Amino acid sequence: MIKTDILIIGAGPTGLFAVFEAGLLKLKCHLIDALPQPGGQCSEIYPKKPIYDIPGFPEILAGDLTKNLLEQGKQFEPGFTLGERAETIEKQEDGSFIVTTNKGTQHQAPVVAIAGGLGSFEPRKPAIDGIVDYEDKGVEYIIKDPEFYRDKKVVISGGGDSALDWSIFLTDVASEVTLIHRRNEFRGALDSVEKVGELTKLGKINLITPAEVKGVHGNGKIETLTVVKDGETSQIETDHFIPLFGLSPKLGPIGNWGLDIEKNAIKVDNSLNYQTNIPGVFAIGDVNTYPEKLKLILCGFHEATLMCQAAYRIINPGKKYVLKYTTVSGIDGFDGTRKEAPKAVVQAIN
Amino acid sequence: MIKTDILIIGAGPTGLFAVFEAGLLKLKCHLIDALPQPGGQCSEIYPKKPIYDIPGFPEILAGDLTKNLLEQGKQFEPGFTLGERAETIEKQEDGSFIVTTNKGTQHQAPVVAIAGGLGSFEPRKPAIDGIVDYEDKGVEYIIKDPEFYRDKKVVISGGGDSALDWSIFLTDVASEVTLIHRRNEFRGALDSVEKVGELTKLGKINLITPAEVKGVHGNGKIETLTVVKDGETSQIETDHFIPLFGLSPKLGPIGNWGLDIEKNAIKVDNSLNYQTNIPGVFAIGDVNTYPEKLKLILCGFHEATLMCQAAYRIINPGKKYVLKYTTVSGIDGFDGTRKEAPKAVVQAIN
Ligand SMILES: Cc1cc2nc3c(=O)[nH]c(=O)nc-3n(C[C@H](O)[C@H](O)[C@H](O)COP(=O)(O)OP(=O)(O)OC[C@H]3O[C@@H](n4cnc5c(N)ncnc54)[C@H](O)[C@@H]3O)c2cc1C
Ligand SMILES: Cc1cc2nc3c(=O)[nH]c(=O)nc-3n(C[C@H](O)[C@H](O)[C@H](O)COP(=O)(O)OP(=O)(O)OC[C@H]3O[C@@H](n4cnc5c(N)ncnc54)[C@H](O)[C@@H]3O)c2cc1C
Repeated sequence: MIKTDILIIGAGPTGLFAVFEAGLLKLKCHLIDALPQPGGQCSEIYPKKPIYDIPGFPEILAGDLTKNLLEQGKQFEPGFTLGERAETIEKQEDGSFIVTTNKGTQHQAPVVAIAGGLGSFEPRKPAIDGIVDYEDKGVEYIIKDPEFYRDKKVVISGGGDSALDWSIFLTDVASEVTLIHRRNEFRGALDSVEKVGELTKLGKINLITPAEVKGVHGNGKIETLTVVKDGETSQIETDHFIPLFGLSPKLGPIGNWGLDIEKNAIKVDNSLNYQTNIPGVFAIGDVNTYPEKLKLILCGFHEATLMCQAAYRIINPGKKYVLKYTTVSGIDGFDGTRKEAPKAVVQAIN
Repeated sequence: MIKTDILIIGAGPTGLFAVFEAGLLKLKCHLIDALPQPGGQCSEIYPKKPIYDIPGFPEILAGDLTKNLLEQGKQFEPGFTLGERAETIEKQEDGSFIVTTNKGTQHQAPVVAIAGGLGSFEPRKPAIDGIVDYEDKGVEYIIKDPEFYRDKKVVISGGGDSALDWSIFLTDVASEVTLIHRRNEFRGALDSVEKVGELTKLGKINLITPAEVKGVHGNGKIETLTVVKDGETSQIETDHFIPLFGLSPKLGPIGNWGLDIEKNAIKVDNSLNYQTNIPGVFAIGDVNTYPEKLKLILCGFHEATLMCQAAYRIINPGKKYVLKYTTVSGIDGFDGTRKEAPKAVVQAIN
């Protein structure tokens, strides 16, 4: 059982910033995310694109924002359960909650903050008969750890940035990389498309277009794929088949937790602290709704900050917290580090 | 008469970010500030100190945050009335407001956003008989434009960063710089204290400590000061006397505008859009109060953003606005510039 002060569901920008604000209040966080990496929409959908409306950044790449938020919170040592979906919540006698993932990992905390964005990112799966039987037996929809493919034969299918970028990346890892797409045209960053072209010429990527994987076969694990190109059917040997057709967010199991839901979002009390109808459970960022709600990153930051204050009072009943400026008080990390502004000196001249 | 869409009172971080958010909605802003420079507390009180809790910045100097916010909003061409205090507000027949400053400058807008922080920064004045008679006649409490002192004799008094830093700066501008402080010890950044020491040794700063200016004299403008050091009285000739004893914020005239005030802050409707009891007048950032209010910069950013949405509806009645992501839609500046993310290509390989 993983125990923490604030259990955060969703490691997007909102969840990541909550780690920092909680840390200022000496509260520890643990985050669960269905994705294998933190950053939410920013890292999954548009890591290389600029955002222009993060206050203080005339421009920042979504991937860099994620990196910065991780860096900003790291001294508060957040825990992560990645690649798992929060499935159930159970209130305990002592008022705490136990949240269990689809893989059975259990987490307990007095406060739960749902920062689930548009929902947990779930892969779009190709319509191939029997493919589910090979899931985690050679068929993966998300690349969690590229090392897993070291010296293996890999077939990727898809026509967007993920398919392009992972094909490029895996040429240095896998023994063979095949990229299959049903069109000749790919849709992605110019340099990615060009790079795949080069690697194809060098024989490092085996490009098959326009073509589709129509069948998956093997004994207990993937061994061959049936591929149809120009009406002709062939068999390809492989250790892994990775369809990268994009991920789409689904509110999913959280929809059944007894929370007030309106238009796929969780209703919260925005005149106080973004608490839901279940005391002790908060919803922050894109996942919540209230009058005049804007689904913007900067709003999630504010909501996370107010949520942490309320969490503090739940966890430290009766204790009064006086807001301190980081500039004035500095920051004491849970890892023993301290950041502080250079102090003014009081010094005579001559 | 200066006309604009949103008239912002206070050019601190909240007001500056409102310029950007308003610009996204094609609304133009004009800002009034009692200080000669934008940035509010960040630029006046702690420009060289790091802030640790601006989301996405593990650390940023308050002065750099100000610079970045100005840069982020500049394509929306905000107007500024600096060095003047907003004094009165009058509602017009057509629903708009006219705001007049202490110097008589008039501004008209359909929406007023008060982003006045802890109040308008007013200098602490030394208790010297008759000093008010010389204000703007050789006595200044704020340095607005250092060029004003070109080739003049200047006496600065004070023992903090402003007194130190302006003494250093003016050695390159004024014909003579004298620094008077009632103690031998100064309180400031180490390098500033050391630099003043060096310049004193070089004869570029005439340092008189521990001493006090006790009298101001001259015919229609400052000509001499009476200085007491170690019980001895002397006269110093000068063109300017600049006491830099710090600025302290005062809510001031805004307190009489008929707004609901609670503990020196303006009550707003935080469950909607930070509007005050006067429709069309909003209060954002440190100047407002609501249940669970936190006087933090990041909260001001969120409040400014929601305020702009409400301003849009007042200014464009009946027109529907659909939120667009900056990443997706790019940004069209009022100055004709356009920022946008590099577009994905759709391109065949080979
Ligand atoms: C193309 C694009 C451009 C954008 N441009 C901008 C912009 O310019 N400015 C701006 O402010 N915003 C922009 N946005 C929106 C911005 O990305 C979102 O507002 C932001 O990501 C929301 O952050 P969040 O942390 O609330 O949620 P998300 O980023 O959605 O993260 C939520 C995370 O929770 C996880 N999760 C959900 N449910 C579960 C569960 N049950 N178990 C485990 N994990 C779960 C998800 O997997 C996800 O990783 C853009 C979005 C897109 C798609
Ligand atoms: C030493 C110190 C350290 C801090 N550290 C942090 C930190 O680490 N993190 C954090 O989030 N916050 C911190 N703060 C607080 C932060 O600076 C404020 O929250 C922030 O400046 C508020 O911004 P604002 O734009 O709302 O108001 P302000 O910055 O106060 O700006 C308001 C402006 O309005 C002007 N004004 C007011 N009334 C009038 C009028 N009638 N006419 C004309 N002009 C007027 C004032 O002159 C002022 O320039 C710190 C503050 C101090 C003093």
